[in-house]
Amino acid sequence: MTPAKPLPSYLAQRYHGWRATTYDENKFWYRRLAEEGQRPRAMLIACCDSRVHVTNIFGADSGEMFIHRNIANLVPPYAPSGAHHGTSAAIEYAVTQLKVAHVIVMGHSDCGGVRGCLDMCGGHAAELEEETSFIGRWLDILRPGYARIDTGPENNNPAQSLEKEGVLISLENLMSFPCVRAAVERDELSLHGLWNDIGDGRLYAFHGDTEAFEAV
Amino acid sequence: MTPAKPLPSYLAQRYHGWRATTYDENKFWYRRLAEEGQRPRAMLIACCDSRVHVTNIFGADSGEMFIHRNIANLVPPYAPSGAHHGTSAAIEYAVTQLKVAHVIVMGHSDCGGVRGCLDMCGGHAAELEEETSFIGRWLDILRPGYARIDTGPENNNPAQSLEKEGVLISLENLMSFPCVRAAVERDELSLHGLWNDIGDGRLYAFHGDTEAFEAV
Amino acid sequence: MTPAKPLPSYLAQRYHGWRATTYDENKFWYRRLAEEGQRPRAMLIACCDSRVHVTNIFGADSGEMFIHRNIANLVPPYAPSGAHHGTSAAIEYAVTQLKVAHVIVMGHSDCGGVRGCLDMCGGHAAELEEETSFIGRWLDILRPGYARIDTGPENNNPAQSLEKEGVLISLENLMSFPCVRAAVERDELSLHGLWNDIGDGRLYAFHGDTEAFEAV
Amino acid sequence: MTPAKPLPSYLAQRYHGWRATTYDENKFWYRRLAEEGQRPRAMLIACCDSRVHVTNIFGADSGEMFIHRNIANLVPPYAPSGAHHGTSAAIEYAVTQLKVAHVIVMGHSDCGGVRGCLDMCGGHAAELEEETSFIGRWLDILRPGYARIDTGPENNNPAQSLEKEGVLISLENLMSFPCVRAAVERDELSLHGLWNDIGDGRLYAFHGDTEAFEAV
Repeated sequence: MTPAKPLPSYLAQRYHGWRATTYDENKFWYRRLAEEGQRPRAMLIACCDSRVHVTNIFGADSGEMFIHRNIANLVPPYAPSGAHHGTSAAIEYAVTQLKVAHVIVMGHSDCGGVRGCLDMCGGHAAELEEETSFIGRWLDILRPGYARIDTGPENNNPAQSLEKEGVLISLENLMSFPCVRAAVERDELSLHGLWNDIGDGRLYAFHGDTEAFEAV
Repeated sequence: MTPAKPLPSYLAQRYHGWRATTYDENKFWYRRLAEEGQRPRAMLIACCDSRVHVTNIFGADSGEMFIHRNIANLVPPYAPSGAHHGTSAAIEYAVTQLKVAHVIVMGHSDCGGVRGCLDMCGGHAAELEEETSFIGRWLDILRPGYARIDTGPENNNPAQSLEKEGVLISLENLMSFPCVRAAVERDELSLHGLWNDIGDGRLYAFHGDTEAFEAV
Repeated sequence: MTPAKPLPSYLAQRYHGWRATTYDENKFWYRRLAEEGQRPRAMLIACCDSRVHVTNIFGADSGEMFIHRNIANLVPPYAPSGAHHGTSAAIEYAVTQLKVAHVIVMGHSDCGGVRGCLDMCGGHAAELEEETSFIGRWLDILRPGYARIDTGPENNNPAQSLEKEGVLISLENLMSFPCVRAAVERDELSLHGLWNDIGDGRLYAFHGDTEAFEAV
Repeated sequence: MTPAKPLPSYLAQRYHGWRATTYDENKFWYRRLAEEGQRPRAMLIACCDSRVHVTNIFGADSGEMFIHRNIANLVPPYAPSGAHHGTSAAIEYAVTQLKVAHVIVMGHSDCGGVRGCLDMCGGHAAELEEETSFIGRWLDILRPGYARIDTGPENNNPAQSLEKEGVLISLENLMSFPCVRAAVERDELSLHGLWNDIGDGRLYAFHGDTEAFEAV
């Protein structure tokens, strides 16, 4: 038995508005996409956070971006185990089936997941350390980042440090996937790391040569 | 060492356009969202497919929807194991921390993941059955659906049947999470199942009473 | 004998810059486009005028727009004759082979071709009336527009009137092509008429219901 | 009656982004261009193909290049007939009115038009031989090239041979225009032939002295 309810009316109303306008203006194209399948140019790995509006920032319309969103935009290390690995499956699909040209990991300011990891590693979040905490166990992916950042009093924004470090860890973990590494080495795929400041709207990209996030 | 490259210029150009228009028009609100944190009303679980443009369909601006996207919009059963469970972590975060009012699972037509599951269960995709296939192991979540649908010659669209069945399985699995079940029983959370026809833009919602997907 | 010379050095230099930056950032995608072919969403018919920078205005990267540019962005009426008809061939190719979803005709302010037509129709450009004038004979397509606009003293901008009328004539002529009409009637193609003010950068779209150009 | 629809919203959004950034940064210059008219240095004749991004390759901003784009970047022979000749009109306008210094013909790899001509001349495309086929009649311009290339089994890329031969035919046809020939002979105009490999981004220019395309 599924206790599902009809769509909340505020969403039903917006959907009808969308269908009468955006859909109607583009229906020929959407039908072709339905018939011929997608050919997205990039995969984006972003946070579930409601304030991270990736299609808007990149003006991406239907068909342009393959988007995976999880807590804190994390990529776990390559570790096949026979269990369900949603993020790894999405990466495998994008790289081996869709053959995207870019994988972009995008972090952001004031990330609740990153703050949770900071609390947990600092010993202030016992509930996240329990084995049954899905959030805690997911944020374990970010633990190596905690060891790398400066958590002393002279760092006035350790959360931001960890947000950016998390992007780098995800990029490193991406390279642990054989399919990703092979595509990068064949020059068929490029990796990109971004950090978005939600309040001022700025975007920063990690530059491998300077080893720093620089304003786009 | 992270082999990250700068943002491709076509995306950098669009980002600058966004920042000068949408961001600029809304900067006061975005700054408040940054300072006060998000308060999304709904969590949406959708597919990574580039043709599923959820914020567009629901006219959702920054701050409105907590969005998790994975292959085939699947929710695994509740099964804490100490390992990384990205989808379960996102659900736990949305329900216990953000206390969203709605969790919406949205499937769609022509889903590559669902087609993969159909092939795998029909014995036509040996590569997906390997233990190291992340895609295959992720789609195992959908296997119970294959047993429930009609795969005989009189069903001219078994893929669509499985796409819809997958939404129901995810809704059932959602109810296996103690935090979800408790919130639903306290009437603080409602669950919703949708299926989107990409080509004709229509949305169908599962109605618990008729046990059918009906046009919104 | 072809008296061709090497590329002027200022263009060679820019090409090398482009290849080291934009091409290099996007080479994976460009290779895929080369292997798999184009799938442009829209055809754009614009003027050759160097000030009309359509890819820039629409942020269109490689692969997005099929672009035909001629003097005064004109579409001749459907008239197969066994001779060379470049514009008609481009339309036929876009609609029947590429199956684009939108055909957009874009006029602009201060169009030299339109001004020539105005002069010619007003009796002030004998050289354009000669049978051997390619410019004059091409602008004959726009002659029916001259009859429709107000050329009296109370119209302080007859050139702009004719620029916009030219867009409408081209849209009408588009509909005289059986392949265009059929695709429009099958709801697989939509037509759009734009006029761009070069100096103030504004774009106006013709709205069929109000029969007027309105600011986008 | 013109069945024109408003601009699709994804293009409207990008236009607004362009106007708030690129236009805004350059508005003084664009206003001057609007008031004083264009003074392009070169005319470019390129293919309509969406993957040929000429302004990008040459870093050309508004006002720099007078661009004519048609199927397969062809120039027909000089043949005034009283009918509409869009390409000839564009050439006449560029050379006699704008007095450009360079006319550049740019072909490219994987050209659909050239492939069509190859099929037609090889007897594999009856539909293109019909008198009413605009595409076929336009590609007749390229027929003399088919006779000149090696179509035997030892040529593993006859399409590329014909793409390059097409550039040479267009250059020869350009010289059949009295206004072009006169300007070239007065040393006021130079002609250039290019071929662009879309996949690897390289540009080759025809050198009259070696009679070969050489990497720029």
